[in-house]
Amino acid sequence: MSSEIGRRLKISVFGQSHGKAIGVVVDGLPAGLPIDEEELYTFMSRRRPGSSKLATQRKEDDRPVFLSGLVDGVTAGSPLCAVIENTDTRSNDYATLTDLPRPSHADFTARMRYGEAVDMRGSGHFSGRLTAPLCVAGGVAKQILARKGIYVGAHLLSVENERDESFPLLPTPELFAAVAAKPIPVIDDEAGERMAAAIEAARSEADSVGGVIECAAVGLPAGLGSPMFDGVENRLAAALFGIPAVKGVEFGAGFEAAKMRGSRHNDPFVITDGQVKTSKNDAGGVIGGITTGMPLVVKCAMKPTPSIGRKQQTVSLSKMAPAELEIKGRHDPCVAVRAVPVIEAVTAFTILDNLMEGNENGIT
Amino acid sequence: MSSEIGRRLKISVFGQSHGKAIGVVVDGLPAGLPIDEEELYTFMSRRRPGSSKLATQRKEDDRPVFLSGLVDGVTAGSPLCAVIENTDTRSNDYATLTDLPRPSHADFTARMRYGEAVDMRGSGHFSGRLTAPLCVAGGVAKQILARKGIYVGAHLLSVENERDESFPLLPTPELFAAVAAKPIPVIDDEAGERMAAAIEAARSEADSVGGVIECAAVGLPAGLGSPMFDGVENRLAAALFGIPAVKGVEFGAGFEAAKMRGSRHNDPFVITDGQVKTSKNDAGGVIGGITTGMPLVVKCAMKPTPSIGRKQQTVSLSKMAPAELEIKGRHDPCVAVRAVPVIEAVTAFTILDNLMEGNENGIT
Amino acid sequence: MSSEIGRRLKISVFGQSHGKAIGVVVDGLPAGLPIDEEELYTFMSRRRPGSSKLATQRKEDDRPVFLSGLVDGVTAGSPLCAVIENTDTRSNDYATLTDLPRPSHADFTARMRYGEAVDMRGSGHFSGRLTAPLCVAGGVAKQILARKGIYVGAHLLSVENERDESFPLLPTPELFAAVAAKPIPVIDDEAGERMAAAIEAARSEADSVGGVIECAAVGLPAGLGSPMFDGVENRLAAALFGIPAVKGVEFGAGFEAAKMRGSRHNDPFVITDGQVKTSKNDAGGVIGGITTGMPLVVKCAMKPTPSIGRKQQTVSLSKMAPAELEIKGRHDPCVAVRAVPVIEAVTAFTILDNLMEGNENGIT
Amino acid sequence: MSSEIGRRLKISVFGQSHGKAIGVVVDGLPAGLPIDEEELYTFMSRRRPGSSKLATQRKEDDRPVFLSGLVDGVTAGSPLCAVIENTDTRSNDYATLTDLPRPSHADFTARMRYGEAVDMRGSGHFSGRLTAPLCVAGGVAKQILARKGIYVGAHLLSVENERDESFPLLPTPELFAAVAAKPIPVIDDEAGERMAAAIEAARSEADSVGGVIECAAVGLPAGLGSPMFDGVENRLAAALFGIPAVKGVEFGAGFEAAKMRGSRHNDPFVITDGQVKTSKNDAGGVIGGITTGMPLVVKCAMKPTPSIGRKQQTVSLSKMAPAELEIKGRHDPCVAVRAVPVIEAVTAFTILDNLMEGNENGIT
Repeated sequence: MSSEIGRRLKISVFGQSHGKAIGVVVDGLPAGLPIDEEELYTFMSRRRPGSSKLATQRKEDDRPVFLSGLVDGVTAGSPLCAVIENTDTRSNDYATLTDLPRPSHADFTARMRYGEAVDMRGSGHFSGRLTAPLCVAGGVAKQILARKGIYVGAHLLSVENERDESFPLLPTPELFAAVAAKPIPVIDDEAGERMAAAIEAARSEADSVGGVIECAAVGLPAGLGSPMFDGVENRLAAALFGIPAVKGVEFGAGFEAAKMRGSRHNDPFVITDGQVKTSKNDAGGVIGGITTGMPLVVKCAMKPTPSIGRKQQTVSLSKMAPAELEIKGRHDPCVAVRAVPVIEAVTAFTILDNLMEGNENGIT
Repeated sequence: MSSEIGRRLKISVFGQSHGKAIGVVVDGLPAGLPIDEEELYTFMSRRRPGSSKLATQRKEDDRPVFLSGLVDGVTAGSPLCAVIENTDTRSNDYATLTDLPRPSHADFTARMRYGEAVDMRGSGHFSGRLTAPLCVAGGVAKQILARKGIYVGAHLLSVENERDESFPLLPTPELFAAVAAKPIPVIDDEAGERMAAAIEAARSEADSVGGVIECAAVGLPAGLGSPMFDGVENRLAAALFGIPAVKGVEFGAGFEAAKMRGSRHNDPFVITDGQVKTSKNDAGGVIGGITTGMPLVVKCAMKPTPSIGRKQQTVSLSKMAPAELEIKGRHDPCVAVRAVPVIEAVTAFTILDNLMEGNENGIT
Repeated sequence: MSSEIGRRLKISVFGQSHGKAIGVVVDGLPAGLPIDEEELYTFMSRRRPGSSKLATQRKEDDRPVFLSGLVDGVTAGSPLCAVIENTDTRSNDYATLTDLPRPSHADFTARMRYGEAVDMRGSGHFSGRLTAPLCVAGGVAKQILARKGIYVGAHLLSVENERDESFPLLPTPELFAAVAAKPIPVIDDEAGERMAAAIEAARSEADSVGGVIECAAVGLPAGLGSPMFDGVENRLAAALFGIPAVKGVEFGAGFEAAKMRGSRHNDPFVITDGQVKTSKNDAGGVIGGITTGMPLVVKCAMKPTPSIGRKQQTVSLSKMAPAELEIKGRHDPCVAVRAVPVIEAVTAFTILDNLMEGNENGIT
Repeated sequence: MSSEIGRRLKISVFGQSHGKAIGVVVDGLPAGLPIDEEELYTFMSRRRPGSSKLATQRKEDDRPVFLSGLVDGVTAGSPLCAVIENTDTRSNDYATLTDLPRPSHADFTARMRYGEAVDMRGSGHFSGRLTAPLCVAGGVAKQILARKGIYVGAHLLSVENERDESFPLLPTPELFAAVAAKPIPVIDDEAGERMAAAIEAARSEADSVGGVIECAAVGLPAGLGSPMFDGVENRLAAALFGIPAVKGVEFGAGFEAAKMRGSRHNDPFVITDGQVKTSKNDAGGVIGGITTGMPLVVKCAMKPTPSIGRKQQTVSLSKMAPAELEIKGRHDPCVAVRAVPVIEAVTAFTILDNLMEGNENGIT
């Protein structure tokens, strides 16, 4: 597998859902940065299941243990390794799945890729549980960015056909914090209630729903990134598609831009507080792969959880014959809810990596 | 800048729109592969402007000259370098743009990133013209893939609000060829006519329109790719966002998946001709970052051309004051039309790179 | 820091000498490979200190715990994470070193690079102890390679002015095993005794000695590697210089080749058992970055341990004034002895990475 | 093949000896740096053959043409592409070599790697001629470094058994310039004469000789590089082994260090002009992968030219039988002479790449 990403800040994720532990190595952090472990834990708890009927009933504490890289809560210059033990695993739930691959789940493709020896108990390395280490890396990055005045926040923009309002032109850290504190992380609470109802409706029918997450980073300087293959969009997309269930990534107006005329889509330049800004932000804060200094806005489409309770059509790999499948076990009816902090996390460490690369013009 | 991508098949693009030449180095091709230069040239001519009122009137021949890597039309094992001369350049069209950045164009961000010395004549390295070298690399990759029974094709799925039909479940190479031969590359000719009308309407109003391109790759084996950060989706997205004007990338149902329930989105497995397939393909041929063996389907949102003729609001960088801008010069009213072969090209060389990496299970 | 290496087989090392634990993530191993943990542990024990007066008296058990990647002793396809606890740490030995950098030790450069917050207790991430995780990765690689008929072995070629005989033209796995079983891993036991005496002489004078390690890999196919920057030599050198104390790397005749005439240095081709071989191997098994099919032979110069007991001249960083330093604590008088398996380990995982990349000609 | 290297400053070399042209893309240079083309050409002429009997009689002008990346002699931010035409090629000289591989030459390994289609006319991409593009990249890097007070210079330390004196502890740019101006680039002219005699003796016997090149970089800050796999030594070694004929790389005392005791090898710290320096430099300016602020000193062992005129033993690949070979054509009797600027070039662009990465501590 290949669960590494990053140039200056390198993330390496390890673990299977039902193995001994999962974790992450973060290589490249500067020395001397205080990391608030409680703040990190609070951040991580946002993706933890078990808080409501809207999420899987699996119990996880998921408090990371730092094996290296931190001394008395301060980065030590050396690679940071955080480990999260796997405790509440029930592998027998997944016993039949090796022969009957779950539709739209990685059971089949993992088998085709790695052969029968691949550990897919609890979805193995493909499990949404592996997003916990991503949140460690991203939570650390969020703290470092915040100290530089860069804030990353996200909310659930839509679930099925229910839609929250979009982020305002200039989201504030306070808005990010307010959204993050809610069980359904939305701006408009009524939208959140409609989403909760949609999720509950799906759950009660042994079904699941998808959703869209909108993430923004404010405080970025203009001039970050590069054209062509090394732009901010390229790197963020490469990282965000690493989150299970992400099937689409768009910046600014994204697919809506494809329906627009240039006269509507173009963001007029204006002078604000002595700086060049734009009066709207359909570019999502990035043009030509390079940041404009406006908020970076990225949206991710999350597919509905493939593991649903209702009967599904599949095949028996041993018999190469049609088969029916009823999935037992604990599954989120809407992965998008818990994925909100994960999108933040991946956005945060990708941006930090970009920032750490600096600007080669410094050489002149 | 950073215009390189790839692991085994490495692409390095160079050139500015109004410099001496543009080109590409393709490092990693095996030796002994015949490359049909006429076929390549025919492919490249699909992105060439000047064929109709729907595109910029700039004349370009754009026949690449191979400086290395080919001997008598056969790959020689060494890096292939192809060069395309710049002949029809009129830099004075762009004279005022250094002070008045064009809205939603890289003028401003390039300046912030590289300083005043950056060559932005004709948009410099940010120009859509730099997609010609991408087509050289991708055109070569398409020929190599085709010989292995893998075909890559694309069409214009929508322009503004006009929409072509989607690719069928199993697109054929013949369909790809038929679409490619049309001036507006669509499946449904009537949709093409409506699109042409929409483009012409925008052009006549000194405006531009966006569009969506759907690209498919058929014949891929199941089991290609990796979970998390090195999947087929991650790599394709990282490459596709390198094409100017791409603002969104989605696989299979993509953002539509976010509106679906799992029971509708999940693709049932079936046995077809003794192989495991799916009866529909909302996954877009990739689950968990790994190919399913169904067609890989990716859609790209192309923003409307930012360079439009009508008067726009911008700022004077020298005066740090509001200013008005009227862009002269030759610009596509809809970059999506000419971007169709570019999307194919980038998809093709990214897939070939993936294929060349092989499967580490071969080591067992 | 940047403790990651590899293309298909990615190694990420973490830990500080006096932190909670050290370890390694190995990403990219195929699924289904049995790993013999006892054999691994036996291999690792070769670098373990404490067996004689010739090594540091620090007690380490260093049995790695696998947090992920192995299920019932078989690779699971997912990244393997191995952790080794730090137990016998005496940080106070190092108390004064933050102000008085040890000559030729990373104390000073780490400070210049990472600032005062860098954790240099017990040399931190720069410690030779961090070679234990390298041995985990390399020990696993050695087992995988051996199953393919590729064997990696090393011996102590010289210590100070005492020299073992060189590997024969075609070293056997049996020779590798015999050498590995000795406390001083040499071919000629008398040379080993002379080396032991030289080390003991240095130790008794509170001094240290350097040495040269010769490593060979037999069973490699011809045609592995690439010209210019991605050759077998480039990659091995990049990895081997990652081992603390390595100050030189040469292949085949190496620096001796610089004294030779071509007529003597050139290895004549011969037909042996129906295959093209060379009658001698001054090339060290690699020409133009690509393997010849003869044994790969690499030699590494190991500097003497910089931490010596005798009084040394240094400076006080706080006072920016000359100072004298007497280092207490436990240190190897000759790191080259324990580095023999480390060189094997790093060579093994680098070669495995190369092999896993395969040959792009497979695409033709 | 894989002729790319670098992180921020990416070098991609292309071309075959007897193809249309050779060249290089340098991606990542900042905008706004003036490049003196005459100075570059003067630098490149140092590796050009034809000036004396001591080098191949092949005529090459080798003036690079810049296709992109420079506007009016100033870097434009976009990738720089330089092309050198191949004019004086005599492919028939190499006609028999496809069947009779030259001993210790890449003929055989290239065939094993790439198959029969590999273009090996004039040694193809493996030719020493491909070091000309390296000199373009390195010559540009040298100019940029010099403007920052960093100077890179090299001399021929030895040829066969004749030896120049070593660089002094603190070599000056003036010394570098003086050495570079000589036909045999040495410090001690008498040593140069003895070397010339040794080369001429070999040449007159249709033989060749090897040599050692010592290269130094002065003016580097302390604190550049990283421990383990991303250190200054790792990267330089990875790059330097990309130069044909390099068989060994050592830093500072290198292999001599292996014969030393720690008390002799350790470089005492001293205060000089208010800065921490060392009173000698057996570390070669780098400890733990990180620069000390003393001159970086690296030595490269160059094997004797494998193409020698005298009769050699080889095999016929078509007959799989022993054969004799007499190589015609023009070959350097000592590649080390012309390799001196190449070593400088590769050292320079590798150091510049390191410098451009900056220090992630900037983020704190």
